[in-house]
Amino acid sequence: METKIPVVILGATGSVGQKFVELLKDHPWFEIAALCASERSAGKPYKEAANWFQSSELPERIGRMIVQPCDASVVGRLAFSGLDAEVAGPIEQAYAKAGYTVVSNSKNHRHHPDVPLLVPEINASHLELIQGQQFGEGKIITNPNCSTIGLVMALKPLVDAFGVREVSVVTMQALSGGGYPGVSSLDIVDNAVPYIGGEEEKMEKEPLKIFGDLINGQVEPAVMNISATCNRVAVIDGHMECVSVRLGRSASAQQIIEAWEDYRAEPQEMGLPMAPEQPVHYHREDNYPQPRKHRMLDKGMAVSIGRLRPCSILDWKFTLLSHNTIRGAAGGAILNAELMAEMGLL
Amino acid sequence: METKIPVVILGATGSVGQKFVELLKDHPWFEIAALCASERSAGKPYKEAANWFQSSELPERIGRMIVQPCDASVVGRLAFSGLDAEVAGPIEQAYAKAGYTVVSNSKNHRHHPDVPLLVPEINASHLELIQGQQFGEGKIITNPNCSTIGLVMALKPLVDAFGVREVSVVTMQALSGGGYPGVSSLDIVDNAVPYIGGEEEKMEKEPLKIFGDLINGQVEPAVMNISATCNRVAVIDGHMECVSVRLGRSASAQQIIEAWEDYRAEPQEMGLPMAPEQPVHYHREDNYPQPRKHRMLDKGMAVSIGRLRPCSILDWKFTLLSHNTIRGAAGGAILNAELMAEMGLL
Amino acid sequence: METKIPVVILGATGSVGQKFVELLKDHPWFEIAALCASERSAGKPYKEAANWFQSSELPERIGRMIVQPCDASVVGRLAFSGLDAEVAGPIEQAYAKAGYTVVSNSKNHRHHPDVPLLVPEINASHLELIQGQQFGEGKIITNPNCSTIGLVMALKPLVDAFGVREVSVVTMQALSGGGYPGVSSLDIVDNAVPYIGGEEEKMEKEPLKIFGDLINGQVEPAVMNISATCNRVAVIDGHMECVSVRLGRSASAQQIIEAWEDYRAEPQEMGLPMAPEQPVHYHREDNYPQPRKHRMLDKGMAVSIGRLRPCSILDWKFTLLSHNTIRGAAGGAILNAELMAEMGLL
Amino acid sequence: METKIPVVILGATGSVGQKFVELLKDHPWFEIAALCASERSAGKPYKEAANWFQSSELPERIGRMIVQPCDASVVGRLAFSGLDAEVAGPIEQAYAKAGYTVVSNSKNHRHHPDVPLLVPEINASHLELIQGQQFGEGKIITNPNCSTIGLVMALKPLVDAFGVREVSVVTMQALSGGGYPGVSSLDIVDNAVPYIGGEEEKMEKEPLKIFGDLINGQVEPAVMNISATCNRVAVIDGHMECVSVRLGRSASAQQIIEAWEDYRAEPQEMGLPMAPEQPVHYHREDNYPQPRKHRMLDKGMAVSIGRLRPCSILDWKFTLLSHNTIRGAAGGAILNAELMAEMGLL
Repeated sequence: METKIPVVILGATGSVGQKFVELLKDHPWFEIAALCASERSAGKPYKEAANWFQSSELPERIGRMIVQPCDASVVGRLAFSGLDAEVAGPIEQAYAKAGYTVVSNSKNHRHHPDVPLLVPEINASHLELIQGQQFGEGKIITNPNCSTIGLVMALKPLVDAFGVREVSVVTMQALSGGGYPGVSSLDIVDNAVPYIGGEEEKMEKEPLKIFGDLINGQVEPAVMNISATCNRVAVIDGHMECVSVRLGRSASAQQIIEAWEDYRAEPQEMGLPMAPEQPVHYHREDNYPQPRKHRMLDKGMAVSIGRLRPCSILDWKFTLLSHNTIRGAAGGAILNAELMAEMGLL
Repeated sequence: METKIPVVILGATGSVGQKFVELLKDHPWFEIAALCASERSAGKPYKEAANWFQSSELPERIGRMIVQPCDASVVGRLAFSGLDAEVAGPIEQAYAKAGYTVVSNSKNHRHHPDVPLLVPEINASHLELIQGQQFGEGKIITNPNCSTIGLVMALKPLVDAFGVREVSVVTMQALSGGGYPGVSSLDIVDNAVPYIGGEEEKMEKEPLKIFGDLINGQVEPAVMNISATCNRVAVIDGHMECVSVRLGRSASAQQIIEAWEDYRAEPQEMGLPMAPEQPVHYHREDNYPQPRKHRMLDKGMAVSIGRLRPCSILDWKFTLLSHNTIRGAAGGAILNAELMAEMGLL
Repeated sequence: METKIPVVILGATGSVGQKFVELLKDHPWFEIAALCASERSAGKPYKEAANWFQSSELPERIGRMIVQPCDASVVGRLAFSGLDAEVAGPIEQAYAKAGYTVVSNSKNHRHHPDVPLLVPEINASHLELIQGQQFGEGKIITNPNCSTIGLVMALKPLVDAFGVREVSVVTMQALSGGGYPGVSSLDIVDNAVPYIGGEEEKMEKEPLKIFGDLINGQVEPAVMNISATCNRVAVIDGHMECVSVRLGRSASAQQIIEAWEDYRAEPQEMGLPMAPEQPVHYHREDNYPQPRKHRMLDKGMAVSIGRLRPCSILDWKFTLLSHNTIRGAAGGAILNAELMAEMGLL
Repeated sequence: METKIPVVILGATGSVGQKFVELLKDHPWFEIAALCASERSAGKPYKEAANWFQSSELPERIGRMIVQPCDASVVGRLAFSGLDAEVAGPIEQAYAKAGYTVVSNSKNHRHHPDVPLLVPEINASHLELIQGQQFGEGKIITNPNCSTIGLVMALKPLVDAFGVREVSVVTMQALSGGGYPGVSSLDIVDNAVPYIGGEEEKMEKEPLKIFGDLINGQVEPAVMNISATCNRVAVIDGHMECVSVRLGRSASAQQIIEAWEDYRAEPQEMGLPMAPEQPVHYHREDNYPQPRKHRMLDKGMAVSIGRLRPCSILDWKFTLLSHNTIRGAAGGAILNAELMAEMGLL
């Protein structure tokens, strides 16, 4: 690619928006052309409008950019959306109507029949769905919820090799998943919270579309029984999930680990910039994976798994970890856009 | 009771030992007569020997007591053991041989066929086992692991009302369960650890003895399929557990909640000092129970439950919380001794 | 006192208001008669209106009380105010006008010349100021900021015995001082914040009025040079402060410790219910005081001090700890009211 | 440099040793030739011997290296020492005797009259001291304590421009400064500890040698009155320090900030690989610097400062932050070695 594709970030001041900025500031294919946010922020330099709470430095150049309103008035090509669900629906549709390909992290269009719920390592073929979209000139694609992504990445090699019939999952989710200011410190220091609104429903439903078969231009949801329990713990980044699975056919521990470690898909074959070299890592140490040690593995885009052992109720148990704001949000969305760029869909 | 029963605390300087001291310092029936610990501590005032890390004040009177070795050389009647498993076995037997009733929190004798694994609300009848003991003049009784106790307290009303066939449990356990210094701060600040050595095995095995039937003076283990996953999180006190159960016969949410809220047993009927008034509390708030808010409910002796809802794999899911060093250790052991005292077994 | 004095709590749903409820629910002299809060909460049962985040249980009886608006329309005698500074000014004056004695934790009237900035152990005589008040039938008295109280309690015995000329103080303050939801968890897990808006100014100014002399019915501010730096750290309750002082005349470490340990004043002599038996405790352990171990000393009303040692710039250095929402807010205000009750001023 | 200089890491399995490994694994001038540790670790692959708790991945190649004993039996040129103070003294001398330049992070030789206590931005000229060393063929140089380095980096521009006569400093230090396992989680979750053994003495003494004048081949200690108070808080990496200074002559806030921002020295001029581009950054936001946001500034080698404002007792107050295991330990030592390499002293 000779010149970079200019991109617009919608909801640029929020927590996902900031992560888009952080991951796109030196991206080889994409260049930040505009930062858009609510009326309250519009008109201010980004540095003032955003309470930058990433641990990397905000580049001066970006800090000086003037925040724009999300009004789709400027012509453009690619928009990343980190908008709140309360407003994402009509704004994303307006950008699509104006000709943008909108790569969204919001939940609003995830279950629209013509919108791919895309994980490039899993269901790149679902991009075919966009042919049926009628939002206007542009398109909308989505990535799954931050707690879903680690689960489906860990399940995919098992689905392919053995089939997966039942999944019981209990999460310990990071604070950054709640946005900023999000979870009060008084609720989480010396504490844990056994509930995250709407999260369990997403984990039980989204994998069915992601693993669904594309039949006559429609996604037929997969048949998989998922039971999810979601908790919040005092971790900054990195969702940990304790999973039990019933497989379609029997498998040994070694076969399962090999399925994970050998798994590669389009993003790896295409060498997409944001793609992890190895999507799934298995750790043999008893007490791994851990959020602080493994969340940044492979740029925060790989999923770490450990503790594979038999389950006396279903078949196998294991624990996984994935970075919720990189793989589970902005990084996942960027990988989606990279896949589309490489496939000539932008 | 006119005069208090003098008690010896074995392993008095450790974390469980300190909790025994804290809970016994004003006990209406028992009086601390001796504090025993390792040779390294023996001969020192307790205040110097123990790195007191409870949040209540150490009473002056107890701080001045000289720590004794655990040599069973003094005649006595009742000993509470918070000894490390590495040394508990022979020391507890020596005290039993010397005539003591040893009420132990250690794991060493929990699965001895003649030793009750006692939870007064559940299996008071198992005290009959001690008639078969041949440790000498004295006796040994035990309480379960700190992660087991919350689970069996929550299951007992369901076992009685509906039967329980399968249990899947994922824990988020507190730091105090690891003793002192225990878990390194570098392992838990902005982190969680998906493993606690030996813990899952205890949770899968201990309930079978606790719920077992007493047949011809022996405990026939219950038939219940338990699958446990244990994690450590950044909480000082209070183990939280996400549980799914398959019941023996169908039950409504209301029936289950009533079974929990109405549950009473011997400790409540006898009015034992350490007994919670209501052993199991159900919280209707979406985001309850929480460690910091509910661990001290009913003196730290009650179990809190919340989030009852259907499970798509087993039948019902819920989340429970119990105080791991009170109900799950020292407080549970003291309740065991109170039950024996009331039954005339001391 | 034969019958309890009925009290109204203003701002009852907030963090200070909740602490008032917690500390007054079993008070021997006062009885909660009404819970008042914003229009948004008024009309709801307290249990619904308040997001109760104390670690003690909310009594059923209080949970069912219907929250009232703060409109001073009901006749009454004593009101505790935990109102936000944004609204406290006119509301407190309205209650005073309506005949209430308003015992306030808010900053609004602290520096009014006729309003005592009262710490019963330090300046009970300042109550004389209320004779000059012209708010109407009632009166207003205030207690100092949560970070000021520990400092002035530690300084008072030194002021009396040796004089204090200069004070340098650096704080590590607890999260509950920021109210609820207050500090975001993303700002404090694995982090500390070197700034609390307006806090340093309060610490530098309030002690001058508290230690001031009452001359002709007015408080002449004390002459004391204070330099304060305020930080927020990941502690739930308990402000820790590192203090250096230049004394008026030389003193030995032993003399200073004796001054602290021997200090008693009106609340102790009168045996006020909320008064700590010993207002200031000196801990001889190297690494004491600590928030989690010492904040609840003497019902959370005593100040803990440790680490007294020479300072090469001023004269002496030490570290203090006090409970910011008990001694530093609701508990301090209740002690103020108790003092007034005992002096016949209610 | 054509070929890399082979280096030995002493104490390679400990927390500082691991940081040496992490920072040297891709170093342009140095190459890890041997990893040495105690007899207990010697003979094992590094991956097994070290409980790797860095958040970056341990490279496979290094994980397989067999740990050697610290016996100086192999001929070599450069050794980095992260040894514990209990054993560092004789081992470092043995390596120096065997011809190594020992660049040590340990405290043992910091105050030896012939050993530079080196901070390349401050006292590069002190390297002249090594001419007087009589340890054998090799040399020993040291870097200061992790809490000293941030302070002297912040003071140096002020020393040069205005002079510094008095310094009062109160720290909030990170957990990694205590090594691994180090601080117990039970001592720091919902807590802070007002004491770190030996730390205050180091902060009060080390700057005097660092700022000392080299006269006749000896360092004449600077005259500067420092009063230090050290605390531990729940932060993984990054020491924060609240500082008050009395300057030699008056200065405006702008002059002070310019002195900090403009400061450059030998490491910047030489372009040493580990050198920060700008050694001292001033942040204008009220609530900056913060450990999680700023500790990694400029590879973790820059010092962040904020909150400059007048002090009513001394002249000026500010808050600084520096990364304690990078700038304050392994990174600082590597910069020392880079300086020596560039000066032809290796």
